[in-house]
Amino acid sequence: MSLHLIIGDKDLSSWSLRGALALALTGAKYTEELVRLGQPDTREKLLKYSATAKVPLLKTEFGVIADSLAIGEYLAEQFPDAGLWPKDVAARAQARSACAQMHSGFFALRNHMPMDVLHDAPLSPMPSEVQVEIERMLALWAECRGVAPEPGPYLFGRISLADAFFAPVAVRLRTYRVALPEVDEAYVETLYQWPAFKAWQQAGLEETAR
Amino acid sequence: MSLHLIIGDKDLSSWSLRGALALALTGAKYTEELVRLGQPDTREKLLKYSATAKVPLLKTEFGVIADSLAIGEYLAEQFPDAGLWPKDVAARAQARSACAQMHSGFFALRNHMPMDVLHDAPLSPMPSEVQVEIERMLALWAECRGVAPEPGPYLFGRISLADAFFAPVAVRLRTYRVALPEVDEAYVETLYQWPAFKAWQQAGLEETAR
Repeated sequence: MSLHLIIGDKDLSSWSLRGALALALTGAKYTEELVRLGQPDTREKLLKYSATAKVPLLKTEFGVIADSLAIGEYLAEQFPDAGLWPKDVAARAQARSACAQMHSGFFALRNHMPMDVLHDAPLSPMPSEVQVEIERMLALWAECRGVAPEPGPYLFGRISLADAFFAPVAVRLRTYRVALPEVDEAYVETLYQWPAFKAWQQAGLEETAR
Repeated sequence: MSLHLIIGDKDLSSWSLRGALALALTGAKYTEELVRLGQPDTREKLLKYSATAKVPLLKTEFGVIADSLAIGEYLAEQFPDAGLWPKDVAARAQARSACAQMHSGFFALRNHMPMDVLHDAPLSPMPSEVQVEIERMLALWAECRGVAPEPGPYLFGRISLADAFFAPVAVRLRTYRVALPEVDEAYVETLYQWPAFKAWQQAGLEETAR
């Protein structure tokens, strides 16, 4: 199976991180191509693969798939034994709903607290709409835990695509030093201990050091 | 199977329309509850079902599913014989990618040309970012047709969730009188002839007449 992932800068591209973590869940080998964002030739390089000119993109033997959510669903189908979505129907429906809400929303959080692995300071002052979205995010995580079919440190017990989708949120909460309830702090730490996430973070730090 | 769809006003709520059309594709019976948007008690009524307080919502025996894309995936799984996604792998990947792009983007089109069944006038002047997105939309539709596994009037030949997702775009293009290439005009007309779409449009007109 041929899998080639096109991503943006690892220190900044939160959607690329989601795509890479989705791939990590499959356990499959894949090649990676980093296209630096915001460069004069960024758009041209991405257009070679997709008219969206956005990352992440997954080149497969079935064509180039644009968008992290579509990539996740493709991989979930192609690797049915890897359990990218929870096996339990209710948990799977909730996981998809949570990812879709992340995909189409939380704009205040995304705009005011962009993912940046080098960041380390509180957002001050914290706009009220960001505070509202952080609270909504923690409530959403609680909803996910509420239908988790098994115990475990991840949102649905076992690791799933939902954790890939919320990993960039963990980076934001930690690097902007948002005080969290214990259960959420533990979840953020769980994501920080995920090997695929650690490798990405390390690579991001090395990129910025260049 | 218990299916209860909570929607917003039919003349205005483009995401509700997507959810209703997804359900129509299953052929399943379902009940519908209309919560009028922008009223003093709108939020309270929606919060009874979901902390998102957004439409559409699908109440199922596996919980309430928020978000049109998550609803679509749930229904595609529950009704495997209804063919909500194209059966061909490449077409299905492209269909999901197209829906995801609609789900997370095309903001100029969405903001400047809100869906309103009563609207009937060109956007004047047309902001350049809207023009760019209309062109991108037509290119995306062409990408879909390019991988359609069979001939037919819909984006992937046979009707699919992609058509449910783009039906509100058809309303925008027609009601804002956007001049279209023949193939796209024919596609818009195909969507306008879809019985479930016609029924929704008619109900929307009747709502506004009240």
